[in-house]
Amino acid sequence: MPARLDRTTLRRQVAGSRAAYERDLRQLVEIPTVSVDPSHAADMARGARAAAEVLERHGATAAVLPTDGFPFIVGELATGASNPTVTVYNHMDVQPADGDDWTRAPFELHVEKDRFFGRGATDDKGPALAALLGARLAVEAGVPINVRFLWEMEEEIGSPSFARGLRRYASRLATDSVVVSDTIWVARGKPALSTGLRGLAGATLRLETGTRDVHSGLCGGAARNPIADLVAVLAATYDARTGRVKIPGFYSDVVPPTRAELDSFERSGFTAAAFRRAHGLRVLRHDSARDLMRAIWAAPTFEVHGIAGGYQGPGVKTVIPPWAEAKVSFRLVPGQQPKRVIAALRAHVKKLDPRVVVRAESELEPFLGETSGPLAAAARDAVEFGFGRQPALVREGGSIGAVLSMQRAFGCPVTLLGLSLPEHGYHGPNEFFDWGQASGGALAFARYLEQLAALGRPQRARRGGAPAGGAVRSGGRGAAPRRGARRRGL
Amino acid sequence: MPARLDRTTLRRQVAGSRAAYERDLRQLVEIPTVSVDPSHAADMARGARAAAEVLERHGATAAVLPTDGFPFIVGELATGASNPTVTVYNHMDVQPADGDDWTRAPFELHVEKDRFFGRGATDDKGPALAALLGARLAVEAGVPINVRFLWEMEEEIGSPSFARGLRRYASRLATDSVVVSDTIWVARGKPALSTGLRGLAGATLRLETGTRDVHSGLCGGAARNPIADLVAVLAATYDARTGRVKIPGFYSDVVPPTRAELDSFERSGFTAAAFRRAHGLRVLRHDSARDLMRAIWAAPTFEVHGIAGGYQGPGVKTVIPPWAEAKVSFRLVPGQQPKRVIAALRAHVKKLDPRVVVRAESELEPFLGETSGPLAAAARDAVEFGFGRQPALVREGGSIGAVLSMQRAFGCPVTLLGLSLPEHGYHGPNEFFDWGQASGGALAFARYLEQLAALGRPQRARRGGAPAGGAVRSGGRGAAPRRGARRRGL
Repeated sequence: MPARLDRTTLRRQVAGSRAAYERDLRQLVEIPTVSVDPSHAADMARGARAAAEVLERHGATAAVLPTDGFPFIVGELATGASNPTVTVYNHMDVQPADGDDWTRAPFELHVEKDRFFGRGATDDKGPALAALLGARLAVEAGVPINVRFLWEMEEEIGSPSFARGLRRYASRLATDSVVVSDTIWVARGKPALSTGLRGLAGATLRLETGTRDVHSGLCGGAARNPIADLVAVLAATYDARTGRVKIPGFYSDVVPPTRAELDSFERSGFTAAAFRRAHGLRVLRHDSARDLMRAIWAAPTFEVHGIAGGYQGPGVKTVIPPWAEAKVSFRLVPGQQPKRVIAALRAHVKKLDPRVVVRAESELEPFLGETSGPLAAAARDAVEFGFGRQPALVREGGSIGAVLSMQRAFGCPVTLLGLSLPEHGYHGPNEFFDWGQASGGALAFARYLEQLAALGRPQRARRGGAPAGGAVRSGGRGAAPRRGARRRGL
Repeated sequence: MPARLDRTTLRRQVAGSRAAYERDLRQLVEIPTVSVDPSHAADMARGARAAAEVLERHGATAAVLPTDGFPFIVGELATGASNPTVTVYNHMDVQPADGDDWTRAPFELHVEKDRFFGRGATDDKGPALAALLGARLAVEAGVPINVRFLWEMEEEIGSPSFARGLRRYASRLATDSVVVSDTIWVARGKPALSTGLRGLAGATLRLETGTRDVHSGLCGGAARNPIADLVAVLAATYDARTGRVKIPGFYSDVVPPTRAELDSFERSGFTAAAFRRAHGLRVLRHDSARDLMRAIWAAPTFEVHGIAGGYQGPGVKTVIPPWAEAKVSFRLVPGQQPKRVIAALRAHVKKLDPRVVVRAESELEPFLGETSGPLAAAARDAVEFGFGRQPALVREGGSIGAVLSMQRAFGCPVTLLGLSLPEHGYHGPNEFFDWGQASGGALAFARYLEQLAALGRPQRARRGGAPAGGAVRSGGRGAAPRRGARRRGL
């Protein structure tokens, strides 16, 4: 065992790295790696090369590995085959940045005091660079660990090629554990460790009733209106006020959170007022913090993300349009399976209006990670080292497709060590990251790697590939916990 | 009385005017006079000047008269103060031509055999030029009538400045009767005269719940979704399947058509199959021709013309958007008043979701014209002269704001002498007009003017300004027929 990392020295080193951090972040943010939009294909390739350059600049070897979709960027800080290997996962693709709400150009880095504005700054390029900085400093300080950086470029589209890519490069990517930095604290100054993620099942609902606009004066009364017909289907699919999904059997497979989990949620510092403020929401479906946390972390949802059809210009144009379309998704919780949910949606929609075409989009299973054991302890210690305060255990309402894929492919635990804050605006306009979270994150990552090094390699043998639960809880749970789940009705 | 117009001579003259007709139509169609879109303001001015040029080319005096909105273009073919004056109304503004369904550039005239493609070709520039041609030939043949052309430029936005403009130029525009050519036959080869128009009450429904997109993973379950909330309001406002409006009292003021009117509808040659084919509709709300005609001509509707909110790009972006908006309108029938209907909508929406803002858009009262008397007889005779066949009396499902304004301002009857066909595609993509309708229309207009000349001026004295009904039925009816209408509940 080497000497423990000295916090004072490390803090000084991190502070001295700020200019380099900004340079790296600028280089990554200014390439619009929008994975969902085919027109950005060239940017995706450029973004992968830039990410590899950044890794090499920090002394890592780097390679861009092709997959069936966008490539992996893989970096290595190697210290010796006898040392344990940890994989640090981040993603280099970003959400689109359309809409008028951006007050700065989304694909330029704007530094305002300690804040770094730009699409991808907090999701997930900034955290990736914080982890990289911490890892480099730990290795430079002599921590005996091999750090592999696995940077995906399809996270925002549900990681369609990720699992196959992991199988393709299985031997090259073999690892003892994974740490993912793509999650969000509940509040600034209140470190949090996420132990669960909701799943996702997206779909497009499209109704075509004709081939062209017709005049509502000429046809109105006789013609069916596809907007109205689609509206009727959506209204019959969930209750807009309560959020209650009306699809028969939708809740049958849900494994509700335990009382202990809900109690741990309450220790996170979550408040309804702060949540409302952070997201700019005027009206919420629940009043109490406990009900809200249950709703966003441990309960499934249906959501309409976009709706379109008919005339979109100024004023009113009196047409009956030939089609209408809605983009929807479900967030899923442990016990639920995306495929079953989409099948239930299809059956439900077919019954309501067989003309509506349901096209399944991205799907992700829910995840439930570890809350006890040596890795969970290491993560708690690392966060306290980085931010001076014990983290609360919470869950995330979002989805990270890569987490389950890695858990399955590597047969190893996955820890979520997030650095983002609610006000950073994940997926929204004016996204930013900040130096406080970046610098504390670098410290936390350095410390976490030191602890993994102290645990050594034997862990891996004990764990093996068998998802038998026990100490390494996330190896054997996640996608389909039983806990009395009933599989019926859906 | 001069000698009756010779049909053979007139036909030859019309046939010889085709090249000039195409030249005029090209000049008008190629100026995108889209009144609803502020970015076309310069085109509107250009379009007015071009229209005046066309009038002058046909020997008329022409003036562009300013209004509070877009100007009137007024032309005169004068024959002497002792002769009666008829005003021929058309409009020079057009619908937008957005959308991908146009297979030719909408603001270029494409001539394919006898068809003239382009936005505005049939609504209403082509019919305007047919009427102009017929009028010029009639006057050149010695018909003792003063013809005034009144071309509006705000018809497609509900004629907001028209009524005030008529009052402003009241003495200059005084007239003995009005003929409007902006209506549509039921079928090619089956001339039709429209005796009624539906009214219109448009509105925009907008719900704003926040200021920016939020992430459905972070907030989904707690946040209200404005798309879903608006969908719930729309679903509670009418039945998408039947079209039945759910607003309490909506039908209370409706004056249903008489059995005689419905019988006359049935003689129009309307068939469900042809209607379906003409508009490219797969599914209709009714099976029988009688029910369909009642639904599109003599029953009110609610319609959603456009809906928008949230992500519109490729794939699914998992946001909860901050707003959603729907553009809607009602078609109204005799007995109904736009203001009362919009007030009822406001009350209904407020009860469902007080956050939804209802902004009233264009409104037009319904119109019921004359079906008997000398002008109705003249119109029937003119159509037979132009097209070789007696017309059926029908109604129109659309709205022409100018009709009621002229009826009120001039205290004179308004006749609808339409030339368009269903397949011409009013308001839709690939709009066209054709030479068969244009040339027959020119003949019909020439003949109609000859008949008005034969009726002489005394008509005017008999009619005066008092809307007392009798022979000149449309002078005293229209907006608010009683026929036992009950005004309650709305």
